[in-house]
Amino acid sequence: MVKPIRLGMVGGGNDAFIGGVHRIASRIDGRFQLVAGALSSTPEKARASGAALGLDPARTYDDFEAMATREAGLDDGIEAVAIVTPNHVHYAAARAFLKQGIHVICDKPLTATLEDARKLVKEADDSDALFVLTHNYTGYPMMRQARQMVAEGQLGNLRVVQVEYPQDWLTKADDSKQASWRTDPAQSGVGGATGDIGTHAFNLASFVTGLELESLCADLQAFVPGRELDDNAHVMLRFKGGARGMLWCSQVAPGNENALRLRVYGDKGGIEWAQENPNQLWFTPFGEPKRLLTRGGAGATDAANRVTRIPGGHPEGYLEGFATIYREAADAIEAHRAGHAPDPEVIYPTIADGLVGMQFVDACVRSSKQDGAWVTLAG
Amino acid sequence: MVKPIRLGMVGGGNDAFIGGVHRIASRIDGRFQLVAGALSSTPEKARASGAALGLDPARTYDDFEAMATREAGLDDGIEAVAIVTPNHVHYAAARAFLKQGIHVICDKPLTATLEDARKLVKEADDSDALFVLTHNYTGYPMMRQARQMVAEGQLGNLRVVQVEYPQDWLTKADDSKQASWRTDPAQSGVGGATGDIGTHAFNLASFVTGLELESLCADLQAFVPGRELDDNAHVMLRFKGGARGMLWCSQVAPGNENALRLRVYGDKGGIEWAQENPNQLWFTPFGEPKRLLTRGGAGATDAANRVTRIPGGHPEGYLEGFATIYREAADAIEAHRAGHAPDPEVIYPTIADGLVGMQFVDACVRSSKQDGAWVTLAG
Amino acid sequence: MVKPIRLGMVGGGNDAFIGGVHRIASRIDGRFQLVAGALSSTPEKARASGAALGLDPARTYDDFEAMATREAGLDDGIEAVAIVTPNHVHYAAARAFLKQGIHVICDKPLTATLEDARKLVKEADDSDALFVLTHNYTGYPMMRQARQMVAEGQLGNLRVVQVEYPQDWLTKADDSKQASWRTDPAQSGVGGATGDIGTHAFNLASFVTGLELESLCADLQAFVPGRELDDNAHVMLRFKGGARGMLWCSQVAPGNENALRLRVYGDKGGIEWAQENPNQLWFTPFGEPKRLLTRGGAGATDAANRVTRIPGGHPEGYLEGFATIYREAADAIEAHRAGHAPDPEVIYPTIADGLVGMQFVDACVRSSKQDGAWVTLAG
Amino acid sequence: MVKPIRLGMVGGGNDAFIGGVHRIASRIDGRFQLVAGALSSTPEKARASGAALGLDPARTYDDFEAMATREAGLDDGIEAVAIVTPNHVHYAAARAFLKQGIHVICDKPLTATLEDARKLVKEADDSDALFVLTHNYTGYPMMRQARQMVAEGQLGNLRVVQVEYPQDWLTKADDSKQASWRTDPAQSGVGGATGDIGTHAFNLASFVTGLELESLCADLQAFVPGRELDDNAHVMLRFKGGARGMLWCSQVAPGNENALRLRVYGDKGGIEWAQENPNQLWFTPFGEPKRLLTRGGAGATDAANRVTRIPGGHPEGYLEGFATIYREAADAIEAHRAGHAPDPEVIYPTIADGLVGMQFVDACVRSSKQDGAWVTLAG
Repeated sequence: MVKPIRLGMVGGGNDAFIGGVHRIASRIDGRFQLVAGALSSTPEKARASGAALGLDPARTYDDFEAMATREAGLDDGIEAVAIVTPNHVHYAAARAFLKQGIHVICDKPLTATLEDARKLVKEADDSDALFVLTHNYTGYPMMRQARQMVAEGQLGNLRVVQVEYPQDWLTKADDSKQASWRTDPAQSGVGGATGDIGTHAFNLASFVTGLELESLCADLQAFVPGRELDDNAHVMLRFKGGARGMLWCSQVAPGNENALRLRVYGDKGGIEWAQENPNQLWFTPFGEPKRLLTRGGAGATDAANRVTRIPGGHPEGYLEGFATIYREAADAIEAHRAGHAPDPEVIYPTIADGLVGMQFVDACVRSSKQDGAWVTLAG
Repeated sequence: MVKPIRLGMVGGGNDAFIGGVHRIASRIDGRFQLVAGALSSTPEKARASGAALGLDPARTYDDFEAMATREAGLDDGIEAVAIVTPNHVHYAAARAFLKQGIHVICDKPLTATLEDARKLVKEADDSDALFVLTHNYTGYPMMRQARQMVAEGQLGNLRVVQVEYPQDWLTKADDSKQASWRTDPAQSGVGGATGDIGTHAFNLASFVTGLELESLCADLQAFVPGRELDDNAHVMLRFKGGARGMLWCSQVAPGNENALRLRVYGDKGGIEWAQENPNQLWFTPFGEPKRLLTRGGAGATDAANRVTRIPGGHPEGYLEGFATIYREAADAIEAHRAGHAPDPEVIYPTIADGLVGMQFVDACVRSSKQDGAWVTLAG
Repeated sequence: MVKPIRLGMVGGGNDAFIGGVHRIASRIDGRFQLVAGALSSTPEKARASGAALGLDPARTYDDFEAMATREAGLDDGIEAVAIVTPNHVHYAAARAFLKQGIHVICDKPLTATLEDARKLVKEADDSDALFVLTHNYTGYPMMRQARQMVAEGQLGNLRVVQVEYPQDWLTKADDSKQASWRTDPAQSGVGGATGDIGTHAFNLASFVTGLELESLCADLQAFVPGRELDDNAHVMLRFKGGARGMLWCSQVAPGNENALRLRVYGDKGGIEWAQENPNQLWFTPFGEPKRLLTRGGAGATDAANRVTRIPGGHPEGYLEGFATIYREAADAIEAHRAGHAPDPEVIYPTIADGLVGMQFVDACVRSSKQDGAWVTLAG
Repeated sequence: MVKPIRLGMVGGGNDAFIGGVHRIASRIDGRFQLVAGALSSTPEKARASGAALGLDPARTYDDFEAMATREAGLDDGIEAVAIVTPNHVHYAAARAFLKQGIHVICDKPLTATLEDARKLVKEADDSDALFVLTHNYTGYPMMRQARQMVAEGQLGNLRVVQVEYPQDWLTKADDSKQASWRTDPAQSGVGGATGDIGTHAFNLASFVTGLELESLCADLQAFVPGRELDDNAHVMLRFKGGARGMLWCSQVAPGNENALRLRVYGDKGGIEWAQENPNQLWFTPFGEPKRLLTRGGAGATDAANRVTRIPGGHPEGYLEGFATIYREAADAIEAHRAGHAPDPEVIYPTIADGLVGMQFVDACVRSSKQDGAWVTLAG
C-alpha cells in the first residue's frame, strides 16, 4: 500500500457537523491522513479543535491563506485539502489551495453565488490540482448501479424523472448553528433548501440519468415567518431529448429526516431508490414483476460491486457512500502523483457539476421571482 | 332493516371493469338491489349481460332513455341508477335519470367536457334527485381520518400537499377495450391520464385538506407515439391561503400499479398515505416520533371508525372503500325518501366536486398548451 | 345467472363479529341470499337481530334445531347454513343441518373438542350435504398462487416452514364478549390462542406446502394472570419427508393486530407473505434477485387469477378472501344441485382439514402438559 | 486527543472477509492504528498481506506466538490485538496475547469448543488485559436504545422473545473459502449455523432483554447433503423468570441475506427491529399506535445518542455498529492505561458473553442429539 495522502481541512471545528463526516469518510479506507487544519475562523476555536483532533500545533492555522502558503512550502505539506465551511467561504478557500497546486475536496454547493462559481471554474482550469465536489449520494453503490443500468439501456428511452429531498428540521424557526448559516443569505447564498439539498437532488438525478436540463419552472417558498431563504421548493423539469421531471425539496415536511428519493422511468422499465435505505434498488422491467436489487446481492452490477465493501444484508450507510467519494479522490490523486490519468472507472463529482448546481439554484430563484415562469439555465 | 334500494345500471356489460366494481360495491352492505340495466350500447350485449346478471328480461334495456322513462313509471321502478359508461355518455345518461327524479350514482370524471359538466350541474340543480360521484378513494377509512385530523388542526396550518397517482399499464401502445376508450378524445374528453386518474388525485387532496385551488401550471405529455391524450402530467399547485403542492399522474411509469399517494404537511405535523396499503396512515407531530395509525387500531378516529367494517389488521381494500360511497349514498337516499336531510356525518362526492374536477382537467390542458403557464380554474 | 343459494345462519347476532363477516362474504359475489336465521341463543336477541337484517319473522328462529327441521320441510327452505357461533356449539348445530341434508359452512375451529370433531366427521360422512370450513386465509389469491408455485416445484424440495400469527388484543385481562368466550374452556375448548388463531396458521401452512405433520413439540403459556387457556404458543414442527418448521401464535404481543405471516423455503427458492398486506407475495429463486409478485400483476399465476376480482394495485382484503371461500362453496353447491362434481379447480377447506386442526390443538396441549415433549397427532 | 492505540491483528489476510471489517471498524473513529500483524498461517500470504496494508515488514509475523512475544518487548509494541481467524485458532491466539498482558479483541464465537472457552475464561481471569468479543450487533444505536427501554420498564414484564437470523448463502453446497471453514467441524467447532449466526442472535436477545436462559429445546438440521454441521436450527427458549422465546437461524433460506430480527414483548409494550434497516426501532406501548423510533430522531434515548455519529435519516450501517465496539474498547483500554475503570456507560461484549454463547451452542447440539429434548446450559 502506498502512503496515505496528507490531508488538510478548512472549517470543521468542534461544533460543526459536516467536518466530522469528512474526517470519518477520509479514514474509512485508510487512504488519507489528516495532518493540518484551519478548523475555524475563530482562532481560539481553531486551535482547540486542532488539539482535539491531535494535530501538530504548528500545523493548526488561524486562517486558510496562511495554511495554503505554508503547507505548500513544506516537504511533507498537505497534498489535498477538504473545505467544509459555510458556502460563502468555499470560493476564497478553494482558490487559495488551487493556486498552490493543492487538490481540493470541497463540500457542496460549490459556492454561495453563481458568479463565484464561474470564477472558481476559471481558477480550477488554471490549476494543475484536482477539484472534487462531495455530492456524496453519488457514492452509494446502488446509485452507481442505477447509472450503469440507465447507460446500458435497461430502462429504454427515459421519459420521467421524479426526485425529491424532504426534511423537517426547519419546520419551526431555529437558531442553532447548523440552521443559522443555512438560512442566512450572506453565508448560504441565494438558495436555502434549493442550495442545501436541492442541489443534491438535482445532482443525483443528473448523475443517474445522464440527462441535461433544458429549462425549469420553480415555485419557492419561505414558509417560516421571517425566514429569508426558501425552505420549500417545487420545480418542474424539462430535459433535453424530451424527458420531463419534478423536483421537490423541503425543510418543513414533518416526518421526513433525509428522505432523498429518486425514481426514473423509461419505455422499457423503471427504477426506484430511497436514501434512507440505500442498499436497495427497485427495478421493474415493464411487464415483469418488480425486483429488489441489493448491494452485494445477486443482481448487483460491476459498477456497484466496485464500490462495495461488505456482503449484502449488512448495510452500508451514509458514511460509506461519502467515503467512496474520498476513495475515488484518492485514486485520482495517486494517479496524478504518478503522472497519468486515473482508471476510467473512477468517478467523482467535479467542479463542472458544481457549476451546473449553481446554475440550477440560480434558475430556481429566477423562475420563482418571475412568478414561476419557465427559464433556462444561465451560462 | 329497511328494504334495499332498487338500483339500475347504465353500462357495465360483460367485458367492462368498473361496472363489476360498482355491482360488488352496491352489494357489500346489502343496501341496494340491482333490478334493471341498460348494460351496453350494443343491444345483444346489453341483453346477454342482463341475463348473466339474472335481471328480469323486461327490465333489461337497449338504451338508457327507454330505461329512464319506463322505470320512472313502474311502481317498483328503480330509485337510483349507477352510470358506469365511458365519460362521453355520462352527461346524457345522467340527465335522463335526473329528469325523472331518479338518483344518480355516476363514475368519474363527471363528463367528457367542461361544457357538459356545467350543463349537468344545471340539470342536477333542477332535479330533486341526488347526484353521487364515485371518487371512491374518499371512502377509505384512513382518508376520512386524515380529513378529520386536518380539520381538527392536528397538522396546523397547511403548507405543502404532494399527491401522485402513477400507473404503468399504458407504457406501450395498447388496443384493449379499457385502453382504447381512455385514450380516445371522443370518448374520454380532453384529458387522458389527467381525466382518468389525475381527477382522483386532485379530488382526494381536496377532500383531505379542504383547500381550494387558486392556480396551477401543468406540463402534459403523450409519451407513447401516436397517443392523442396525455399519459403523463406534472402539475404544480397553488392553493388559496398560501399552501403549495405538486400533482403527478402517469400511466407510463413501469413498476406502478395504482400507486396513488398523498402527503400533507403543516406547521404542526405531517401525514402520509398510500392507496396500495390503505389501512395505514402515517402521522408525525413535529418533533415527535412518527406514528403508524391503522384502520381499526388504537389511533383511529370517529370518522374512520364510522366507515370501518372489520377489526384492525384484517385489511379492508378497494372494494370496501368503494362500498362506503354506496353506503353513504344509501343513507342519503333513505333520508331523502323520508323527507329529511341525511345525518351530517354522511359524506359523498357531489356534482360540485365533479365540476371542480373538470375545471382541473381543463386548466391542466390549457396550461400545457400555453407551454406550462400558470392558469386559474375556469368558472 | 342461476338463482342465489338460499342461506341460513346460526349465531351472528347483533354484537357478534364473525357473523357480520360471513354475511358480507356471502354477498360480495351475489351467490347467496340470507333468508333465515337462529341468530342468538337468547330468543329476544335472535328476533331483534333477524329484524335488523330484514329477515322474515317466520324464518327467524329461537333455536337451530327448530330451524333445521322446519327449513328442511319448506319448498324454498335454506340450502345451506352458516354456523358462526362459539366453538362449543359447532358440533350440535352442524349435525342438525347435516342430518337434514342442508350444506354446512362452518367457522373454525371445527369444534371445541377432538372428540366432537371425530363425531362430526362421521355425521358428515353419513350426510349427502357438503361441509365447508371457513379457513378464510386460504381464499387470498396470493396464497392460492403460493400453493401452485410449491406444487409446481418452483421452490424445490421444501426444507423450512415458518408460520406465525401474533395479535395483541388479549395483552391484558379483557371481559368483552369477543374475549370472554375465547378464553373460556367451556365455550372455546382446550385451546386458546392455539384454537383461535393457531389453527389458522397451521391450516395455511399445510394448504400452501401440502406437507403433513409428523410430530410437534409445544410450549403453551397463559401469560395473563387468571387466564385459563393459552394466550401464547411456541411450537416446533416436523413434517413427513424431512421439512422442519416453527409456529408461533400469540394474543399478547403488543404491536401486532393480525400479523399472520408465512415463509416457506426449499432448495430452489423461498416465498414470504404477510396477511396484513395480502396482495403481495415475495419470491426469491435462489441466486436471483427477490421478486415482488402482486395479485393481478405480471407474475400472477392461474390459481391466483381465478380468484381475483379487480386489477393489481387496487387492494383486495380480508372480506374478499373470505368471500372466495363462499364463492367456492357456491360452485360446489351448484354442482351438487346439478348432480355432478365441481370443477377440480374449486378448492375449499373441508371437514378433514377441520379434524387435522383439532388434532393439532390436541397435540399442542398434550405436548405442553408433558413439559414440551415431542408428540404425534392423535388419530 | 490522545494517541491512537497500537493495534495488531491475527488473521485477516488478503482474501478474508471479517479481517477487513475489523480494520475499517478500527479506523472509523481514529482511535486505533494497525501496526503489526500475523495475518495468515501461510508465511508468504502473511507477508504479502502485511505489505498490502503498509505494515512495517519487521512487524509482519509468520505466527502469532512470535508476534505476542516480540511485540510485548517493544517500547511501542501493540497494546491490543484483533483476532479474526477461524474459530479453532481463537483460543491459542487469545491465550498468547493475554499472557503478555496485551488486550484482546476477538471475533465470535469465542472458541471452537466449550472446553476451550472454559480454559480461555481462566486465562482471561489470570490476565490483567481486557477481553472484548465482537458481537457487533450490540453496537447498533437502536439496540442500545432497546436495551435501555427494556431496563427502564417501558415494555413491562417481558413475556415473549422472538429472534431469528436467516441467511441463504449456503443453500447449495459451496466450497468457497468463507463457506469451507464454516462448515468444517475441525475449524468451526460443533456448531454450524448455530455457532456462526445463532450465537449472534442469542447474544443480541440476551443483550437487549437482560434475560438469562434456563433451558432450551433444539432441532438442528444439515439440509445440504454431505454437510457435517447444522445449516438450520429451530430452538425454543425458556428464560428464568418465565419469559419464553424462539430462535431460528438458517443458512438455507433463499431470499434472506443477513435478516437478523429481534422482537420482544412485555405486558406493557413491544419492540421490533431488523438488522437490514438498523436505524429504525418499532415501539408499541400497548393500546397506543405503533411508533417509529429512529436513530438520531425525536424518540432516540441517551443510550442510542451516545453511540450515534450522524443525524437521523442518514443511515449508519454495519461498519459503524462494529466500530462502536472498537470505540468502546478504546475507551476501556484508555481507562485501563490510566489505571481506572471506564465510564459505566461503556459497554462491550465480554468473555463471559462468549462463554454463554458456547454453552448455548453446546446445549443446542446436545438437545438435538437427544431428539429435541429440553436441556439446560452446561456450566
